[in-house]
Amino acid sequence: MLANRIETALDAALRRGQGGDGPPRLAEALSYACKPGGARIRPTILTSVALACGDDRPCVTDAAAAAIELIHCASLVHDDLPCFDDADLRRGKATLHRAYSEPLAVLAGDSLIVMGFDTLAHAAPEDPMRGIALIRILAQRTGMPDGICAGQGWESEGKIDLRAYHRAKTGALFIAATQMGAAAAGQDPEPWEELGARIGEAFQVADDLRDALLDEAHLGKPCGQDDRLGRPSAVAELGVRGAVKRLDDILSGTIASIPSCPGEAKLAELVTRYAHKLAPREALLRFPGE
Amino acid sequence: MLANRIETALDAALRRGQGGDGPPRLAEALSYACKPGGARIRPTILTSVALACGDDRPCVTDAAAAAIELIHCASLVHDDLPCFDDADLRRGKATLHRAYSEPLAVLAGDSLIVMGFDTLAHAAPEDPMRGIALIRILAQRTGMPDGICAGQGWESEGKIDLRAYHRAKTGALFIAATQMGAAAAGQDPEPWEELGARIGEAFQVADDLRDALLDEAHLGKPCGQDDRLGRPSAVAELGVRGAVKRLDDILSGTIASIPSCPGEAKLAELVTRYAHKLAPREALLRFPGE
Repeated sequence: MLANRIETALDAALRRGQGGDGPPRLAEALSYACKPGGARIRPTILTSVALACGDDRPCVTDAAAAAIELIHCASLVHDDLPCFDDADLRRGKATLHRAYSEPLAVLAGDSLIVMGFDTLAHAAPEDPMRGIALIRILAQRTGMPDGICAGQGWESEGKIDLRAYHRAKTGALFIAATQMGAAAAGQDPEPWEELGARIGEAFQVADDLRDALLDEAHLGKPCGQDDRLGRPSAVAELGVRGAVKRLDDILSGTIASIPSCPGEAKLAELVTRYAHKLAPREALLRFPGE
Repeated sequence: MLANRIETALDAALRRGQGGDGPPRLAEALSYACKPGGARIRPTILTSVALACGDDRPCVTDAAAAAIELIHCASLVHDDLPCFDDADLRRGKATLHRAYSEPLAVLAGDSLIVMGFDTLAHAAPEDPMRGIALIRILAQRTGMPDGICAGQGWESEGKIDLRAYHRAKTGALFIAATQMGAAAAGQDPEPWEELGARIGEAFQVADDLRDALLDEAHLGKPCGQDDRLGRPSAVAELGVRGAVKRLDDILSGTIASIPSCPGEAKLAELVTRYAHKLAPREALLRFPGE
């Protein structure tokens, strides 16, 4: 099972950061940040792309899957901090800085970022050039000027470049997922950028819809955050109807953007399945046929 | 000149993170965090060790020097945050969260960590196995359980393991400096750990003395912080006299711990020169001959 494979890889990475003589509470906080997980959607896409490309170095794929999820979890911990979203809930439980403390939340995020890169470097001797390519992709899509840090940084600008903002804030790690999946299997990552960008866009619009339509119990975190924080959102821009239409448009182009590879058909199936999961049922029930 | 070489390498790394379409204020904050620098002591040690070992891949050495300084600057930005030291001044100017904002300080730190690893990965194709070794050393000495994140994490524990605390909080990046210098020049990093650990210990004791004895104008940051924050310090533990004696003891063993290498004599000279700079003159004037 894909889910088990990803969880096992993540656990192995976490164990390396928690061994030895580290401070026990910070060690515990690392697990708290990552377990239990959300949908693990980024490592699932990554591993699915690797499998579609042959997955001839499973250890490298597993390291890449763990690494991207570690970076994602780090970003959630830092995004929840009082100076950003000041969130109390995440994945249905207290956010890390509420459960532990703000210092431990900053440090857990920092440590998980480092662990992401270390996990790739640890697996790299298996195939050094692939390992280095993976580290570069992950760094590009995490840091400045194109990664999720840049995306979050746009929220501190007076004038937002909306396209750059969305592409970096949500899109970046989806682009990393498709590109790293290809690179882990020894394929050129470049043709995989568009698929990742489209999935990222769809995910962003679906997330905006969920934030606007679902209640806290269904979200596992506070709802109406975008509105409350005055953040740009597809719903604010296009209305619910318009956002549902936009999601449909993006998804219909996504399948077409899958690069040719041995597992193309299976990957198309997976993307379609995800697409149905992505669109919040509540939106589709309210606006059927849109 | 060593100082120019390090600055050039750091500027090249920063430029890569500031190019493209990133958010302008965060891009600016990255420079603010790194320039003008402090003594650049960690990259200076790193480059000196690489030179002593032959420095046959100068590009790799330069990337390593830039990477370790980026991580160090990231740690200063995060350590200064309100939830840690809540510092107003750093290197004689406003701390990053005071000059920009707390969100930008968190993001600048995160981005600089990523940039550290990306800088090494960018230079790695020149010599993949060295590049991977460098990434692993830097990750080990930055994250959990042995790196500077772990060191800072000890301050959130009820019961502190003092040895682990000091070794991780200050020692870790000095160990990274000597080991990465050796690895950048293709040498086994293992024998270089002790030299780094000793320099780190000496630096910590000297820093404790400076914190206790100098005023804000000389420090470029608030003085008496260890005492105010109830942090363990060599001065609190041993008194000023005892701490000066301890510094002397450490330094006398440092030269002896330099592994045999072509540039051994020159490296010993450099360490002695640093040792004299390290010990605060005020302490030596008050307690001559100790």
